[in-house]
Amino acid sequence: FPSKLPQVGTTIFSVMSALAAKHGAVNLGQGFPDFACDPALLDAVAEAMRAGHNQYPPMPGVPALRNAVAAKIEALHGRRYSPDSEITITAGATQAILTAILCCVRPGDEVIVLEPCYDSYVPNIELAGATVVRVPLTPGSFRPDFDRIAAALSPRTRLLILNSPHNPSATIWSAAEMRRLEELLAPTDVLLVSDEVYEHMVFDGEQHQSAARFAGLAERAFVVSSFGKTFHVTGWKVGTVVAPAALTAEFRKVHQFNVFTVNTPMQHGLAQYLQEPQHYLQLPAFYQAKRDLFRAGLAGSRLKLLPSAGSYFQCVDYSAVSDLPEQAFSEWLVREIGVAAIPVSAFYGDNFDQRLVRFCYAKRDETLHTALQQLRRL
Amino acid sequence: FPSKLPQVGTTIFSVMSALAAKHGAVNLGQGFPDFACDPALLDAVAEAMRAGHNQYPPMPGVPALRNAVAAKIEALHGRRYSPDSEITITAGATQAILTAILCCVRPGDEVIVLEPCYDSYVPNIELAGATVVRVPLTPGSFRPDFDRIAAALSPRTRLLILNSPHNPSATIWSAAEMRRLEELLAPTDVLLVSDEVYEHMVFDGEQHQSAARFAGLAERAFVVSSFGKTFHVTGWKVGTVVAPAALTAEFRKVHQFNVFTVNTPMQHGLAQYLQEPQHYLQLPAFYQAKRDLFRAGLAGSRLKLLPSAGSYFQCVDYSAVSDLPEQAFSEWLVREIGVAAIPVSAFYGDNFDQRLVRFCYAKRDETLHTALQQLRRL
Ligand SMILES: CSCCC(=O)C(=O)O
Ligand SMILES: CSCCC(=O)C(=O)O
Repeated sequence: FPSKLPQVGTTIFSVMSALAAKHGAVNLGQGFPDFACDPALLDAVAEAMRAGHNQYPPMPGVPALRNAVAAKIEALHGRRYSPDSEITITAGATQAILTAILCCVRPGDEVIVLEPCYDSYVPNIELAGATVVRVPLTPGSFRPDFDRIAAALSPRTRLLILNSPHNPSATIWSAAEMRRLEELLAPTDVLLVSDEVYEHMVFDGEQHQSAARFAGLAERAFVVSSFGKTFHVTGWKVGTVVAPAALTAEFRKVHQFNVFTVNTPMQHGLAQYLQEPQHYLQLPAFYQAKRDLFRAGLAGSRLKLLPSAGSYFQCVDYSAVSDLPEQAFSEWLVREIGVAAIPVSAFYGDNFDQRLVRFCYAKRDETLHTALQQLRRL
Repeated sequence: FPSKLPQVGTTIFSVMSALAAKHGAVNLGQGFPDFACDPALLDAVAEAMRAGHNQYPPMPGVPALRNAVAAKIEALHGRRYSPDSEITITAGATQAILTAILCCVRPGDEVIVLEPCYDSYVPNIELAGATVVRVPLTPGSFRPDFDRIAAALSPRTRLLILNSPHNPSATIWSAAEMRRLEELLAPTDVLLVSDEVYEHMVFDGEQHQSAARFAGLAERAFVVSSFGKTFHVTGWKVGTVVAPAALTAEFRKVHQFNVFTVNTPMQHGLAQYLQEPQHYLQLPAFYQAKRDLFRAGLAGSRLKLLPSAGSYFQCVDYSAVSDLPEQAFSEWLVREIGVAAIPVSAFYGDNFDQRLVRFCYAKRDETLHTALQQLRRL
């Protein structure tokens, strides 16, 4: 039968991970840590299983976890979300984003994405039958271009998808930029999906500007987080959506008939682990050290480092090294240099090519040292 | 904003579980076991976590689990599915069914459901923008009525959803009925979702007639299973879809951008646990004993027992006890008798009322004894 998603192939992340495995390369492509999570978190989950927390949790999530999420957001961003009516636990951030889109976007609606963007957004919008409106971030700086966003808004715009800290560019939106967006959307009824999965990886003393901090954004936003990214367990597939009660009600209608609920023992383990704020407050310093190690290792190489203000990614301009387009360069890099990266062109609908690749530095220091040694051969 | 699923409220399962908790009633409503799963399964998951299986698994699922699923289906049903291209691990059966529907059903298509049916099917079809075509199972016997199914088929029929063992009626389809369906669909290109989550709860020496056993059905079927239901861990949210390669390819396109992957340590634990076929081969006897205990306890009461050939449900006709409609009777039952059940009308779009309620007997024997004691007051 004819495909509903004819453009969709295997994600670039799976492709590059497979290539890395094939060539025995250091995998700095797909974003996941190669170090262990805190054993205390594993203990908490094992204990929850043994205590018998293995049956359906309440549909929106285990209350203790929703309470912990509410407390964390209030402490960090000063906004109080109701665990009962405004917080839902999801099977990871991707499921959260698809569910948010499906619950409010209809055929004929328009959804604005800021390119480059994560590869699930566009097929998610297509599954809802809506039209994708692509607005590029400013090439080079990856800052939002508010004139272009304003020009893209139409009476049919239903939703805009925001992502900060940004994958792949590692930029973070400033408070001033968030306020610009708030003003721009004020006269509209455009909803927002704010993908904040890298919320705890913000460096140099900067503050993550969650949509939850801006009343005019929060009132229209599904704010998406990921415990997998935060606590080094990307395979656990537990995330969160917070949204005003009216949005949450619609979100849960779809959520209930998508996954219904999310793994019970993992939820209990995470609830207990969140009792200690240090578990997430230490993350900026932890990842900044890795960023600095990785950047220092490439300083003086022919790879030009772009800023990495947030996320666990580092983009480099390799144009002094090679004339190959990004995809071909990435394949060459994994094969000849033994390091896997992700071509930034994979985050653009038209594969816009800037001679940039993205490395993930969420790796053990020894992994980074090995990769750096090989990259310095460039 | 206007709801995309205006009909959807809180599922009857959550509603009745909440009422049971409120009244301190024995909860025989929502289908989940109140006994512990095998500690060996918990150990296998805890071990997988400690061994470091906490990052993204491959998108279609952990290879060892897909291999184990292929071996199980081949042993039970004599059909060999390819773990590489025909088996996908899902975040439970509900996610599997929504994903199957989203990947092949378009606005304007028709999807046939056989009523009574599980409450996720209809909103799933609506999310795909398709038209729901409801065909009742024969009232009283709940056998398929092939004349009505034939009459419901149209050039726009894209999919039919089958469920055996059947929730809520506890009937199972015979081989002859499966062959009738096979013949009926032979001249069409109608696809099938075969919801077989109660596959291991089939009693009295009968054989579960999986769609995988009938070539003409298997070639068009997404066959859906649930480890949560099978191994008494409904909160783990791990299931399986098997389907021919062409269908699996489309399924995975949507799956990849819905949940992407499924909890890694749970997958590893289940893969190990499946190495011992006795873990599922013992289930029919285990649940048949519970069924027999529950039925024996109601024999001679004024509740009329319908057959329970499969699943872990028992429907009863209470018309000798009360004139109340099902919903009101269920509320009265939980309040006054202290036992929660599910009104069968909740499984019909028009709330068709037959004075039937559904009990779940997947409970400890002592729970069943307590419930029976209270039900005998009727
Ligand atoms: C879902 S696999 C990709 C992980 C990731 O978020 C990334 O590498 O960008
Ligand atoms: C998803 S909660 C409902 C469990 C169940 O399958 C049922 O009770 O029918």
